[in-house]
Amino acid sequence: MIWTGLDIATALSDALEKRPGSSPVYFLCSANTHSLCLSLIEMVEINVPSSHVFVVPDGENAKTLSTCESIYLWMQSAGALRNALLINVGGGALCDVGGFCAATYLRGIAFWNIPTTLLAMVDASVGGKNGINLLHHKNYIGTFQQPEKVFVSPHWLSTLSHPELLSGWAEVIKHGIIAGGKHFQQVMKPRPAISDQQAWLGLIEWNIKLKARIVESDFIEKGDRKLLNLGHTVGHALESWSHDVKLPISHGCAVAWGLVYETKIAIKVSPNRAETQRLYEDLKMLVKSIYDPIPRIEGDIAVLMNYIQADKKNEHHALLFSLAFAPGDCHYNINIDAEAVVQALNG
Amino acid sequence: MIWTGLDIATALSDALEKRPGSSPVYFLCSANTHSLCLSLIEMVEINVPSSHVFVVPDGENAKTLSTCESIYLWMQSAGALRNALLINVGGGALCDVGGFCAATYLRGIAFWNIPTTLLAMVDASVGGKNGINLLHHKNYIGTFQQPEKVFVSPHWLSTLSHPELLSGWAEVIKHGIIAGGKHFQQVMKPRPAISDQQAWLGLIEWNIKLKARIVESDFIEKGDRKLLNLGHTVGHALESWSHDVKLPISHGCAVAWGLVYETKIAIKVSPNRAETQRLYEDLKMLVKSIYDPIPRIEGDIAVLMNYIQADKKNEHHALLFSLAFAPGDCHYNINIDAEAVVQALNG
Repeated sequence: MIWTGLDIATALSDALEKRPGSSPVYFLCSANTHSLCLSLIEMVEINVPSSHVFVVPDGENAKTLSTCESIYLWMQSAGALRNALLINVGGGALCDVGGFCAATYLRGIAFWNIPTTLLAMVDASVGGKNGINLLHHKNYIGTFQQPEKVFVSPHWLSTLSHPELLSGWAEVIKHGIIAGGKHFQQVMKPRPAISDQQAWLGLIEWNIKLKARIVESDFIEKGDRKLLNLGHTVGHALESWSHDVKLPISHGCAVAWGLVYETKIAIKVSPNRAETQRLYEDLKMLVKSIYDPIPRIEGDIAVLMNYIQADKKNEHHALLFSLAFAPGDCHYNINIDAEAVVQALNG
Repeated sequence: MIWTGLDIATALSDALEKRPGSSPVYFLCSANTHSLCLSLIEMVEINVPSSHVFVVPDGENAKTLSTCESIYLWMQSAGALRNALLINVGGGALCDVGGFCAATYLRGIAFWNIPTTLLAMVDASVGGKNGINLLHHKNYIGTFQQPEKVFVSPHWLSTLSHPELLSGWAEVIKHGIIAGGKHFQQVMKPRPAISDQQAWLGLIEWNIKLKARIVESDFIEKGDRKLLNLGHTVGHALESWSHDVKLPISHGCAVAWGLVYETKIAIKVSPNRAETQRLYEDLKMLVKSIYDPIPRIEGDIAVLMNYIQADKKNEHHALLFSLAFAPGDCHYNINIDAEAVVQALNG
């Protein structure tokens, strides 16, 4: 169940009241979201002992086996049994690690997600993917497990920094490309003002619906769900490489530029299609106007190719891409020559 | 798919040949089963580079997050992608940790189990439960995930020590109690000779069928599957406590005596039923004749009760037991007063 709306406190209170029995509630948050979490607990006026709030490191730093161990031990020592409920209050990384722990603690307890970043609202909170990292390999460990409930509200957007907002906006752009039509038109225009919560609510709602529709049709990612990888094959490689060269770019920036480069790859596949060329020009201009430029990649194409080849979506050593040929016209499992990728990255 | 038979090498060869594409195969084994694993690889005459065999510690020592990390890193560095196949060759603990790693590596790859102990053949290899321990809390972390295939053959029984055989035999006794009728009669009689592979094959087959039937009807353990916990609530407590007091008893011995004590609890619930009394007397005699006695528990009832109360099957602090009232007449979710348990343990 995905709830969207403005009054999250009332929605959460109602849902908690409807839980059967006196099943104990465990709140997981990050250092960043601890105060949001506490104010939420206050708002819903439920009596949660302080031992039932646990704080893990911010962002990707939380996504380790050692954080999982500390979460497991916290729940075990606080007496969490199979009827326990874990509520993740935070961004995508927090929901990722919390979802993984819930899916594996006592072979699975219920969990709810309360995403507090735009990225988590439109992406990580929907779809039932969770995961932690293995060294620098992102989301190498995880499961598919749907949260029992998700509460999404633009309420938290005002707490985000500008880069955090842009990070989520890259996924919104991606969803606009997949949806096409009026949604693509919307993402090509400026973002609503943060104070315009109704506009944001509408935007968040179509993003969630789009993602939920795709995920429902293909829960374990054998087909349509791969469309959601748009921009991410090159994006993940850019992100990993930027950390290697100590010029780190954000996930959003990496995905936004990934969308641009992958449309260039689409041109290689379908060189005579004017729409693909136009999509590439439009995206390039849009991304340039919103996001930081990425560091010069020309000398490091081989390193990027290594990351792209290690992508876990590949099979039998083929390079498989999801590509957009026009707004609303995206395809997956497209087998691409390494040479074509190198050319797209190079030019 | 659960294959049972005598010629495991041919069955495994055939199944591997039928795998689509050239999906790489990763063999996981323990120090104990390493040579069995190598001889199996030789028998099936497949070309598996040595880097694709990984050895983890024997028994419960393997069931830690740190072993999981080493398994994940081995697979990652050996290039395992989503089409990889993990084959677990070993006892219950090895299949547990291997199944958990397969279920969580890249959000789930296929795995096959080749159980080499009687316990793993009749119990751990069927049912899709996997798990690792959290400190001394058994199977606190895990998932429900069915192996794609299981290959069960009495072929390996001759490699087991007497205590290992008895460990599995406790589950056979439990299954006999649940099934009732001729199967109960069989488990009350002496075990077949190890050389009589046909007799063992028949015995293993009805055990697997019984467990598979119960598991299929209730994969996530909300109902009938709880019957399989027979003997285990007291059994797990006895096992944990015996380690605390440095007089460790085997899992099988603990479960066997757990079956006896839990039948005593059943008598408290249904004091006037002659069959329950008879079952208790029969089981006590049988277990006494096969298994070592357990250390004196009289002074440590409170410690045992703590373990029983921490059992992860309990809900809302009620003590929930699965109990046998007669062969073939078992029930689950029976709410028992702590006092009745204390009395059963005491006298």
